[in-house]
Amino acid sequence: MSIFKHTTKLIHFYRPFLKSFSSMEKAHISKEGLVSRRADLEDLLKRRFYIMQSFGIYGGKAGLYDYGPPGCAIKANVEKIWRDHFVIEEDMLEISATNITPDIVLRASGHEEKFSDIMVNDVEKKEIVYRADHLIEEFIEETKTKQKDKLTPEKLARFDEILRRINEYKVNDIEEIIKELGIKSTKTGNALSKPYEFNLMFAIQIGPTGDSKGYLRPETAQGIFVNFRNLLEYNGGRVPFACAQLGIGFRNEIAPRGGLLRLREFGMAEIEHFVDPEDKSHPKFASYKDYALPLYHRHQQENGLDSVEMTLTQAISQKIINNETLAYFIARTHQFLIRVGIRPEGIRFRQHLGNEMAHYSQDCWDAEVLTSYGWVEVVGIADRSAFDLTRHTKYSKKDLVAARKFTQAKEIEVLEVKLAKPVIGKAFKAENKAIVEALENLDENTRKAAQEGLAQDKTWTLTLEDGRTFAITPDMMSFDLKKKRIMEEKFTPHVIEPSFGIGRIIYCSWEHSFKMRSKERTYLHIPPKIAPYKCSLLTVVTDPRFDPFVNKIVEGLKKYGISNKVDTTGQGIGKRYARTDEVGIPFGITIDHDTLEKETVTLREIDTTLQVRVPVNEIVDLVYNLSEETAKWEEVLKKYPQFTPSSQE
Amino acid sequence: MSIFKHTTKLIHFYRPFLKSFSSMEKAHISKEGLVSRRADLEDLLKRRFYIMQSFGIYGGKAGLYDYGPPGCAIKANVEKIWRDHFVIEEDMLEISATNITPDIVLRASGHEEKFSDIMVNDVEKKEIVYRADHLIEEFIEETKTKQKDKLTPEKLARFDEILRRINEYKVNDIEEIIKELGIKSTKTGNALSKPYEFNLMFAIQIGPTGDSKGYLRPETAQGIFVNFRNLLEYNGGRVPFACAQLGIGFRNEIAPRGGLLRLREFGMAEIEHFVDPEDKSHPKFASYKDYALPLYHRHQQENGLDSVEMTLTQAISQKIINNETLAYFIARTHQFLIRVGIRPEGIRFRQHLGNEMAHYSQDCWDAEVLTSYGWVEVVGIADRSAFDLTRHTKYSKKDLVAARKFTQAKEIEVLEVKLAKPVIGKAFKAENKAIVEALENLDENTRKAAQEGLAQDKTWTLTLEDGRTFAITPDMMSFDLKKKRIMEEKFTPHVIEPSFGIGRIIYCSWEHSFKMRSKERTYLHIPPKIAPYKCSLLTVVTDPRFDPFVNKIVEGLKKYGISNKVDTTGQGIGKRYARTDEVGIPFGITIDHDTLEKETVTLREIDTTLQVRVPVNEIVDLVYNLSEETAKWEEVLKKYPQFTPSSQE
Repeated sequence: MSIFKHTTKLIHFYRPFLKSFSSMEKAHISKEGLVSRRADLEDLLKRRFYIMQSFGIYGGKAGLYDYGPPGCAIKANVEKIWRDHFVIEEDMLEISATNITPDIVLRASGHEEKFSDIMVNDVEKKEIVYRADHLIEEFIEETKTKQKDKLTPEKLARFDEILRRINEYKVNDIEEIIKELGIKSTKTGNALSKPYEFNLMFAIQIGPTGDSKGYLRPETAQGIFVNFRNLLEYNGGRVPFACAQLGIGFRNEIAPRGGLLRLREFGMAEIEHFVDPEDKSHPKFASYKDYALPLYHRHQQENGLDSVEMTLTQAISQKIINNETLAYFIARTHQFLIRVGIRPEGIRFRQHLGNEMAHYSQDCWDAEVLTSYGWVEVVGIADRSAFDLTRHTKYSKKDLVAARKFTQAKEIEVLEVKLAKPVIGKAFKAENKAIVEALENLDENTRKAAQEGLAQDKTWTLTLEDGRTFAITPDMMSFDLKKKRIMEEKFTPHVIEPSFGIGRIIYCSWEHSFKMRSKERTYLHIPPKIAPYKCSLLTVVTDPRFDPFVNKIVEGLKKYGISNKVDTTGQGIGKRYARTDEVGIPFGITIDHDTLEKETVTLREIDTTLQVRVPVNEIVDLVYNLSEETAKWEEVLKKYPQFTPSSQE
Repeated sequence: MSIFKHTTKLIHFYRPFLKSFSSMEKAHISKEGLVSRRADLEDLLKRRFYIMQSFGIYGGKAGLYDYGPPGCAIKANVEKIWRDHFVIEEDMLEISATNITPDIVLRASGHEEKFSDIMVNDVEKKEIVYRADHLIEEFIEETKTKQKDKLTPEKLARFDEILRRINEYKVNDIEEIIKELGIKSTKTGNALSKPYEFNLMFAIQIGPTGDSKGYLRPETAQGIFVNFRNLLEYNGGRVPFACAQLGIGFRNEIAPRGGLLRLREFGMAEIEHFVDPEDKSHPKFASYKDYALPLYHRHQQENGLDSVEMTLTQAISQKIINNETLAYFIARTHQFLIRVGIRPEGIRFRQHLGNEMAHYSQDCWDAEVLTSYGWVEVVGIADRSAFDLTRHTKYSKKDLVAARKFTQAKEIEVLEVKLAKPVIGKAFKAENKAIVEALENLDENTRKAAQEGLAQDKTWTLTLEDGRTFAITPDMMSFDLKKKRIMEEKFTPHVIEPSFGIGRIIYCSWEHSFKMRSKERTYLHIPPKIAPYKCSLLTVVTDPRFDPFVNKIVEGLKKYGISNKVDTTGQGIGKRYARTDEVGIPFGITIDHDTLEKETVTLREIDTTLQVRVPVNEIVDLVYNLSEETAKWEEVLKKYPQFTPSSQE
C-alpha cells in the first residue's frame, strides 16, 4: 500500500480525477503534495472529531479508532444507503449473527489454519516484531532510494520480482529472501528470528471452564453460512437467494499502519448470494447489459496495461467476467461507491491473478479506489464455488444443500451396489464394519470406477478416509444399473460473495471529497445523503424576535427527520459558516432582518457558498428534497433569487 | 428472575395487562399458562427465524443468539426509533467506539476488580460449575415446593431473607449459606468447592507480543468517558451535554439461562448526560412536569407495597426522584418503551434500595417490564455522580473537567502556600522531592487543615499517596490568604446514565405483542414502526394481467422506502395471510379481479383482519402513513369502504 510504488501512475491518474478541484489543490498533484494533502485531511478529521484514535487519554491504541459525532453519523448513513441499495432493492434476507464464534466454525472455514501473516522477531529484543512482507518492502524501497545509481539492472529486476510476488511467499520463501537481502531488525540492527506464521484472529475462552474455545469473527460471512439451512427454509426452499449482514470484523494485526485503512476492528457489510452452479444467470442482468465500467482484468495486468472501459455484455461475451451474477454485483457495487461520494474517475475493478486466488475460487474482483496511498481495495467480489457450504457440511455433518425441482419427472440411471457381506466379513474381520459402510456410501463416480476396475482387473482398491487401503474382489460386490424417476435433485449451492469494508469506503469518500478554500478553511464536500447533519440553522445576530422563526423551522426539520445544528449565538456569521463547513453540513439556513419583514430566509450551499432567498413556508420541503438528493442545488439556483451577503463571509 | 417468586403478584398484574387479549388467551393467565404461552411464542420466533440459537449446525452455543431476517429488521427499527427519540430529539452527540478495550480502561472503571459473579465447582467433577446465587435460589425454591408443609415459619422467614438479600452477599456469606443449607452439586450430589469470584469479561491479547492485554467491553459507557475531552471540545466547552452510543456489550456468563434475557453478547444503547453537579435541572422538565408513571420507590418496596402512579413534579417535590434530569429521562424512557410496543400496564420504574447501589451513586432507577419471567430489568437510569470521570482522571493523569463560566468576574479567597525549601531539604534529604511536590499540590481543604494544625499543635502530618507519613513543622511552610478575581471555575461533571438493553426490550415487546387466533395461528401484533416489513403485496391468483399493478405498487413502495414482501404465487390466500401474519407484517395489499376493472385493491390489517377497498393511486401514500404511524387503522376503516372477502380466509 505504499504510495511510492507507482508514483508516476498515481499522479497520472490523480490529475484528471482532481480536475474539478481548485487551482490551489492542483498544485498538490505530486507525491509530496498528496501526502501533505492527506495530512491536512487527517487534521480536519481529528479536529472536528470525525474520527480519533481510541483511548487517547491513555496514550492511544494502534489499529483502533472511534467515530466521533460527525463520523458516526456518516457511518450510519453509509450503512443505510448500503441497506437500501442492496438489501431492500434486491429483496435480500438480512441477519445479525454473533461476533463470538466457536473454534470449530473457523476451523471449518479454514481461518484457523490459514488466516495468518508471517512475522519475524528481533533475536535480541524479542518484543520487537515485524510483519515480514512489510519489512521486505520497506527494505527494498529504502535500498532503491539510498543506492539509486549503484544498483545493477539485475538487482532492480530482482527487487521488482519480489515486490510483485510478495503476497505469494510462504514462510520458507520469506526466510530465504531475508537471508538473500541481508535484512536486519531496523530498530536495532540485530539479526532476525526465523519467520513464522501468526494467526490474526483474537482468541477467547467462552464460559468459565476453559474447555470452550472461540475467536472473534474475522469476517461476518461465516454467520451466514452456518445459518444456511434456516435461511433456505425461510426462503421457502428457493435458490437463488441472497443474505446480507452488516457488522464488525476483527483482525489482530501485527503492527497496524496505514491510518484508517488497516484496523484491528472494522465495519463490514457482506452478501452471500447462493446460486445453482448450473445457472449463474441473473434476472436483472438485462437492465445492466450496457453498463460500462473500468475493468483491470488479468490480461491487462499481465501485460502492464491500464484498466479498460467495458460493458458487462462485452466482459461476459469475452469471458473476462466469469458469470452474469458476478458481473451484476460488480456493476451494483460501482453504483454504490459513487452514491456514497467516491469519484468514478478514481474507481477500477481489478481481477485477481491466478496465483492470488484460492484454489476453489472461480473468479474474483476487487473494487479499488485511488487515494494518496495508491489504489486501495475496498470491496472484494468473489465466486467462491461450493467451498464454504461443503466445508461446513464436512465439519458439522449436516447436509447444506438445496433442491433443483423439475416441473415433470426426470428419468435418471443409478448404479446400485450389492454387497456380499459374508464374503467381506470373512476377508476383513475387524475392519468389516468400516469397509461395508464405506462401500455403501460410495458416490456415483467412485461406483463407476469400482465397476470398471473389477470388470477389467478383477480387483479394485478402496481407500478409507483415514488413508488405509483394501483390495476389493469381484466376489464381494456386484452392480445393477437401475432407472429411476425423480422430481428433484439435490445440490450444494455456489456462492457469489461481495464483501465491503465500510470504514475503508468512508475513508476513500473523505479523501475524494476533501477540499480547501485555503490552508485554514478546509471542508468535506460529501453527498447530502451521507452528510452527518443535513442543515444548519443560524440567526445573523442574537435577537429574540427571531425565536418564533427558529422554533417553526426546527419543528419542521424534526418532523421530516432532517438532522440539523442550530446556532443562534451572536458570533460572526462567517466564522460560523466556516465551522458548519468543517463538520460537512451541506446546507445552511440563515434567519436575518428580512425574515421579520418578508418571511424569507437565506439558504447557503457548502461547496459554491452561494445563497438564495426562500420563503419560510417552503424552506423545510426544499431542504428535505436537497438532503434526499431528489432536488439539485443547480435547480434551486435557477428557481430562487440569489442573495449576495454584504460582508457576512 | 424465576417466575415462581411472586406467582400471585404476577398473575394479578398480568390479568389487566392482558385484558384486550382474546378469551382463549385469558385462560393462560396462570403460572403454567404463562410458561406454556412463552413456549408458543418461542416456537413462533424460531419457526419464522426471528431469532435462533447461534451455531445450530454445530449443536448451538449457550448464551449466543442470531437475529434472522424479521428479527434483524425489528432490531434495526428499534435502534432507529431509539436514535430518533433520544439522539435526534434531544440533540445528543453520538459516537461509535471500539469493542476491544485495553485493560487499564477497565481497571479505572472498576470492572477488572468488581465485574464478577460468585461461582462454585463440583469437588469431584471440576468441569461442573454453578453460579452460586442461582444455585441457592433454586435450592430454596425446590425445598419450598418439596417440603411444603414441613417447613417452620422461622425456616421460611430465613429463606425469604436469603432470597431478598442474595445480590448483597460476598464470597464469605455465600460460603456460609451453602454450609447452613447443606447445598450439594445438583447434578451429582457431590460436595461443592469453596465459592470464588469469576470475572465476567472476555480477556484478549492485543497484538502479537502478549504484553498488551485487553477485554471485550462489558458496556459501551467507557467508550464515552474516555472520549470526554473530545466530546466537550466538540460541544464548544458547554455543559450540560449528552453523548449516546449504540453497540454491543459482552459478558462471559457462567451458565446462561433465561432464554433471550441473559446473553454473552447483546445489543446496548447508552447515554451519558454530563451535568454541572450544582445544577441538575433540565430545560425540558417543564413540559413533562405533569407526566405520570408508576414508581416503585424505596418506601413502597421496603413496606411490601406496590408501585404508585405519580407525576414527575410530585416525585421531585417529595424527594423521591433525586433531580429533574433523572426524572426527565425516566419519563422519556417510559415513552420510548411504549413506542416500541411494550404495554404501559406492564411497565414500572423500580428504585434501587440503599444496599443495591454503588457507594458513589446518588439515585438509580430500573425500568422493569412484566413478562412470563416476572419483572425484568430492561433499562437502568442512574445518577453516577463524578465517579467515572474521577477514576479516569486518576488512572490517565489527564484532567477530565469542564468550566463554569461567570458572566462577570467573581472574587474568591485562595489560601496560598509558601515553602521553605532549604529547611525541608535538610530535614528529609532523600524524600525531599516527593514531599515538596506533595506540599505544592495540596487541595484547598488540606491546605486549611495544615494551617490549623501548624497554628494549634505546631506540627502537622503529611500523608503521601503511598501511605508514608512525615511530620511538618511551622518553619517549613507558611500561608497567605489572597483575593483573586476569576471568570470561570473548573469542575468534574456528574453524569446521569440511562442504559438500555436492546435485546431485552425487543424480547419484552414480543411477549407483549404475541397473540393467538388458535394454537396453530399465532402472530406478533407489534407497532408498524418496528415491523420487519410494513406491507405484503399479494395477488389473489396468478394472472399476468395483474403484473402492471404489482409493478406499479412495488415501485411506489420502494420509492418511499417501505419494506415489503411480494407473493404472486397461486397458493390459497388464507394460507398466505397466515404466513404474513407470522412474520409480523401489519398491512397486506391484495390485487384481485376488481383491480382490473375498478383500479382498486384491498388493504388488510393484521390484528383485526378487516379489509377495505382503496384506489390504486392512494394505496402507497396510505400504507406509508400507516407504517409511519401518522395514520391509524381506525381512521382508515372510517374513510374507505369495508371489503368482505367471500371465502378467502
